[in-house]
Amino acid sequence: MARQSRQKRVTILDVAKDAKVSFAAVSKVLRNAYGVSDALREKVNISIKKLGYTPNTAARAMRGRTFVVGVIFPDMRNPFFADILAGISSALERTQYESVQGIARHSTEPSLVQSMIDMQMDGLILVGTTATSKALSAVGQKKPTAVIGHHLPDTKSVDTVNNDDEISGRLVVRHLVEQGYRKIVMLSLDTENGTVIERREAGYRSEMEGAGLEGAIKVVRVSQSLREIQVAAKALISRQDRPDAIFCWTDFVALEVISVAQASGLNIPDDIAVVGHDNTIYCDFHQNSLTSVDQSGEQLGLQAARLLIERIEGRSKCEHFLVHPRLVARRSSLRAESVA
Amino acid sequence: MARQSRQKRVTILDVAKDAKVSFAAVSKVLRNAYGVSDALREKVNISIKKLGYTPNTAARAMRGRTFVVGVIFPDMRNPFFADILAGISSALERTQYESVQGIARHSTEPSLVQSMIDMQMDGLILVGTTATSKALSAVGQKKPTAVIGHHLPDTKSVDTVNNDDEISGRLVVRHLVEQGYRKIVMLSLDTENGTVIERREAGYRSEMEGAGLEGAIKVVRVSQSLREIQVAAKALISRQDRPDAIFCWTDFVALEVISVAQASGLNIPDDIAVVGHDNTIYCDFHQNSLTSVDQSGEQLGLQAARLLIERIEGRSKCEHFLVHPRLVARRSSLRAESVA
Repeated sequence: MARQSRQKRVTILDVAKDAKVSFAAVSKVLRNAYGVSDALREKVNISIKKLGYTPNTAARAMRGRTFVVGVIFPDMRNPFFADILAGISSALERTQYESVQGIARHSTEPSLVQSMIDMQMDGLILVGTTATSKALSAVGQKKPTAVIGHHLPDTKSVDTVNNDDEISGRLVVRHLVEQGYRKIVMLSLDTENGTVIERREAGYRSEMEGAGLEGAIKVVRVSQSLREIQVAAKALISRQDRPDAIFCWTDFVALEVISVAQASGLNIPDDIAVVGHDNTIYCDFHQNSLTSVDQSGEQLGLQAARLLIERIEGRSKCEHFLVHPRLVARRSSLRAESVA
Repeated sequence: MARQSRQKRVTILDVAKDAKVSFAAVSKVLRNAYGVSDALREKVNISIKKLGYTPNTAARAMRGRTFVVGVIFPDMRNPFFADILAGISSALERTQYESVQGIARHSTEPSLVQSMIDMQMDGLILVGTTATSKALSAVGQKKPTAVIGHHLPDTKSVDTVNNDDEISGRLVVRHLVEQGYRKIVMLSLDTENGTVIERREAGYRSEMEGAGLEGAIKVVRVSQSLREIQVAAKALISRQDRPDAIFCWTDFVALEVISVAQASGLNIPDDIAVVGHDNTIYCDFHQNSLTSVDQSGEQLGLQAARLLIERIEGRSKCEHFLVHPRLVARRSSLRAESVA
């Protein structure tokens, strides 16, 4: 923290003096202006480094940019969001931008969005928002905005980056049917205007129909509370007509289902298969060995950051990016005979 | 996102007009000034609600406060940080303050701190920082600052909130010795100036000595990379003189050790015990059943937020808060004979 330990703030003037160039020359280098010679850039950068100069965000804001983007997540518990943030960070690493994060639920998101706009952030990335298309348009008109995990194909004011969630639902059912499972229940999220969940459920339903399993279709929606997930999992498992497979909308829920099933003495995958979604870091742990759908959180984050910066720097037409998911099969859904 | 969908921003003047009071009266209510009558407050609040007024952060900053605090975490992967954030959020819920988060490693922390200061945040909470006492003093002189997870008993410029990490190390060794384990290795974090880790190791060492196990003391330090943790765990497990217990500095590492041990065909806890730290949400999952030390992340976050707001609102003398840890024993370290 060497820079913070200086009492007096280093200014552009100090840099100019040290580099023996004009204030305007330093300013040009700082904003990457056209026509700056390599020699000048090097000279200024040496002084910047030597003096420990950091551009003042407020001062940059007056020139129209703060080079800070705000990222809003619905919570910090889901390990999938760490993957998304890793993608955003690695995209920003190569630029002048840095990011700050905020955590907001549906009801507190508007206030946090407004605070980030007030703080003069250059753009916003909203992850897993459930805001309406109209509300997002209003945000997009104020600030360049990219949305991850919310299907808005008709929106013209924000960029979107999504997984093809209908394919996700289809892939899971297809895999489970191939493994001989039939009574496949989906443990889904109780949410309003959650287009990701709607599509994932639609994929599940249509693939079940395609496999002639209409009669077995069952979607149970629960909140994100661990307690409610536990109760729902226990209820499913202790039914007389117990499902032989549970497809969970996100890995964290699937890990809890594994826990409840094992605690009830069930064998996974012989008695019951468990499949998750997002292929987060925990799936690979031997004690979980959780089959999951990979939608590449890192890729989603990377693309959103790339699109956002393009928008900040002038692109006016919005873009929609779609990732194609793939299923990663592990022990939790592979019946003994099919394991090599 | 109703508020964002308004095209024109609602101002204090609009509120004053609607409530039929003066601009100054609204301003007084907003900053909770002394001498505001309940009747006036109610009248203004009704208009604020009706019009959907949100105070502009920049405008508030000119009056000296933005009511935003910045929280910096070293990463977003460790589930322990979600517990800390939950505590911070629940403390702030009862106040006018909201928080934004930033993720920074040791090398990028100074720049993020500076950006948050530039964004006029009212205060900072630094979680798991490894900055020197001198550097933190400089930050603390610029902004009210609370530090979680860094022992700086002599600092006079920042508040600190910590677990008693020496006790943590002692508790783990004591428990493992009681369960009959002797070859107890500590899998620790490779870090510079990490006072939490130093104390946890010191507790481990002194309790091992106290139990007459000096000869078995072994501390292996690895980075936070999953790959390196895997390699270190495999190396420990395949040694001729395999340890009979591994104490991991954080739960995430312990979950990986369980994975590696099980994949190598070892039985936990008969062949090897595994203990974590932080008692995060994953410990309770049946497939992990991980013994861990609870330092109450939520409590740490809550206290830090409380102390920070006191500082923002005028307290000048700094305070240091210490949480006493407790061990939560689960299957991963309970030998069969001692399980009820």
